[in-house]
Amino acid sequence: MSVFTAAADQSLCAPLPVLGKDVTVPLVTGGEVTYAALDYAASAPALQRVWDDVAAYAPYYGSVHRGAGYLSQLSTDLFENSRATVAEFLGCRADDQVIFTRSTTDSLNLLAAVVPADCQVFVYETEHHASLLPWRDARVTYLNAPRTPAQAVETLERALADRDPYGPALVCVTGASNVTGELWPVKELAAAAHAHGARIVLDAAQLAPHHPVDIAGLDVDWVAFSGHKLYAPFGSGVLAGRSDWLRAAEPYLAGGGASRKVARRTDGGVDVEWHSTAARHEAGSPNVIGVYSIASACKALTEAGFDNLVAREQHLVGAVRAGLAGIPEVKVLSLFGDDAPRVGVISFVVEGWNSSHFAAALSAEYGIGVRDGLFCAHPLVRTLLGSDPQEVGECGAPEAGPGERSLNAIRVSFGAGTPDEHIERFVRAVTELVSEGAQWKYRTEDGRCVPDRGAAQL
Amino acid sequence: MSVFTAAADQSLCAPLPVLGKDVTVPLVTGGEVTYAALDYAASAPALQRVWDDVAAYAPYYGSVHRGAGYLSQLSTDLFENSRATVAEFLGCRADDQVIFTRSTTDSLNLLAAVVPADCQVFVYETEHHASLLPWRDARVTYLNAPRTPAQAVETLERALADRDPYGPALVCVTGASNVTGELWPVKELAAAAHAHGARIVLDAAQLAPHHPVDIAGLDVDWVAFSGHKLYAPFGSGVLAGRSDWLRAAEPYLAGGGASRKVARRTDGGVDVEWHSTAARHEAGSPNVIGVYSIASACKALTEAGFDNLVAREQHLVGAVRAGLAGIPEVKVLSLFGDDAPRVGVISFVVEGWNSSHFAAALSAEYGIGVRDGLFCAHPLVRTLLGSDPQEVGECGAPEAGPGERSLNAIRVSFGAGTPDEHIERFVRAVTELVSEGAQWKYRTEDGRCVPDRGAAQL
Repeated sequence: MSVFTAAADQSLCAPLPVLGKDVTVPLVTGGEVTYAALDYAASAPALQRVWDDVAAYAPYYGSVHRGAGYLSQLSTDLFENSRATVAEFLGCRADDQVIFTRSTTDSLNLLAAVVPADCQVFVYETEHHASLLPWRDARVTYLNAPRTPAQAVETLERALADRDPYGPALVCVTGASNVTGELWPVKELAAAAHAHGARIVLDAAQLAPHHPVDIAGLDVDWVAFSGHKLYAPFGSGVLAGRSDWLRAAEPYLAGGGASRKVARRTDGGVDVEWHSTAARHEAGSPNVIGVYSIASACKALTEAGFDNLVAREQHLVGAVRAGLAGIPEVKVLSLFGDDAPRVGVISFVVEGWNSSHFAAALSAEYGIGVRDGLFCAHPLVRTLLGSDPQEVGECGAPEAGPGERSLNAIRVSFGAGTPDEHIERFVRAVTELVSEGAQWKYRTEDGRCVPDRGAAQL
Repeated sequence: MSVFTAAADQSLCAPLPVLGKDVTVPLVTGGEVTYAALDYAASAPALQRVWDDVAAYAPYYGSVHRGAGYLSQLSTDLFENSRATVAEFLGCRADDQVIFTRSTTDSLNLLAAVVPADCQVFVYETEHHASLLPWRDARVTYLNAPRTPAQAVETLERALADRDPYGPALVCVTGASNVTGELWPVKELAAAAHAHGARIVLDAAQLAPHHPVDIAGLDVDWVAFSGHKLYAPFGSGVLAGRSDWLRAAEPYLAGGGASRKVARRTDGGVDVEWHSTAARHEAGSPNVIGVYSIASACKALTEAGFDNLVAREQHLVGAVRAGLAGIPEVKVLSLFGDDAPRVGVISFVVEGWNSSHFAAALSAEYGIGVRDGLFCAHPLVRTLLGSDPQEVGECGAPEAGPGERSLNAIRVSFGAGTPDEHIERFVRAVTELVSEGAQWKYRTEDGRCVPDRGAAQL
């Protein structure tokens, strides 16, 4: 039975065409099935439009900022126009810089490298490791997991008010959790940060693919996101925002492109004059294909109508949550409760199941790709599971019996390219696995959960 | 008249098919012509084989190291198999690590971040900025430009012997100059470094696309190169070599993938356990398409027979040098003299010409893409041009009259995909421009040299 009502379907847009939508994968139970990519929160498939744009450009590829030839000029224009497209997509202010990086992780490491020496950093323990860990030399205050959006704001306000000394401060917060999919009160947190003389960076890795991000409207100082989660998996990411710290800091990488003038000194040393534009932090030949693919994705999402995509995704979110709510053995992980707004990222555990085995069965018996583990957000997942902080869940961890705590979770995630059928199959698969068990056994081999070919339960 | 002899042609392999070989560009003098991409040293076109491999994989794209689904497993295998392919291509030793970065610049910045605190760095002033500048916190000795390979070895030996204290040291040297194309005596320099208790990293950005690189045979400690110069322009690069410094250092980027275990401490802080494998320095989702494209290029070059490619390229080098030698106004830049072995990278100046205007005319009137400027190797180019170290050449610099020094140079570079016709056209174009002058005038606009539409000389 479909988890969707026909009436609801009719008012929604179709999924956007993505690469791989017709790829079939073998099942251990025999035959093949089209692959259901439900791991968008890790890496989303490329939009067909993005691929087509990259393929059309590839023969015209040339060096950026570095050549006199026609294709170099064209590639340079494409690169800088892509910067303008991303600035528009994010609603950047006039004095904001858009720096191209390799990923959100890289973007936040870049920002960490440019924070003033005396800057204190405030970050919730619930963040992805990419937001939690880059602040190496800074004094970091880790905020406890809030249980409501209002509590998040209160926690931050108290911490900022109490900081000693009351100097420069930076808050780093996610827009949408990569574990629960729940939206964080970014605008309120930005207001709180600014009221207390702090700046704020938005980790939009999980927000940008699912929601419009308006840097000026939210009044955040920086935004970071990745191409590979925004349907543009060609190795580029973005850090956009206030230019003052970026201009004042040493270049992120030292090399060509970032250096305007290099000269030997008479004492044998070397003098370097660095650029103060975005190029300052983009040393080396730019990844123009990666950057152009992000611009192409920004255009595709805007032209499809982000509101339409949000409406469709919320419909899928509702279907998954309704389906899982009907299975008593399934516990969905949540910080902010059932009514919290969220994107298409949902994590859960199944009583009596090792999460890794459950995820392996979804893949091997249903052709569904999800993720299991702690999702590069160890403290958050442990808090949600009630685990001991020193316990590490991993593939092959002991199976949780009735009443026992799981050490890992399962995450299903989806977006603009997900057809209804993938969601229907997922809900059916979870229902069948819980009620009937898997048809094969699974075991750990080289750190991976694989079907145990000696123990088929057919 | 052809610059090639028919007899020589017949014994050589055909160019490898590359993307863009049929792209046509408009000429200011009217009509269109196929684009002659002669700026390989900046960015080479993708091999058709590389593009085909990427296109075949793209629908199967999935998260690497992060998913339970079939395509995630496939993508993880593809990623790690690519690592093995690159290790084989470079002739890595058993205990070497292959780290995927975004470019040579990134690779050398990574190495700079892992050198022991008391390590002294020795680098020739003739290096590309990517090799010259990353050694931020280290004590750096800049070695003067040698005028013979033997002098390069002597200079290094003397500097290493004289170092005070006689502690850990690292030598960074290019395999082939990005300005003159000349080969450096890497094996001899490695022997000198090791004899003096130093390590050595080979900047193979310009060597790897043109010559087999054998890390064990050359006995260098690390090798760095870029995909975008190796016919794989998808945003990835490589640092390969000794694992001890890499394992001992803090992760290059902090984030997911690099972290094995993250836990809150009872005092509110956070404990992190990092991986000791290559993943330690590869935080964030890997650029699997970029990495796979490099592996594909390595296979394509190996399968084509690197000796055949070298023979063909040397034939083109000879044709360019013979053609330029016949034009008295052209001065080819060289450190090691006419007999030095070199790859397909040749820089020159033309008496009476602003190099930027010359390069602009090659593009606008002949459809030939070269590079002009100082090639991110300012000290070297100034040394070769005899410029004042404080003078900066740039687009629009005053035209050099007869007997005057140019502040910029012109660089022509080519490789496995270059057909004879591009070289023939280039030699003919230089000959005509020098003897007859350009048909249009050129001027600077927004930092670019463009045809002056008000001053056509047709």
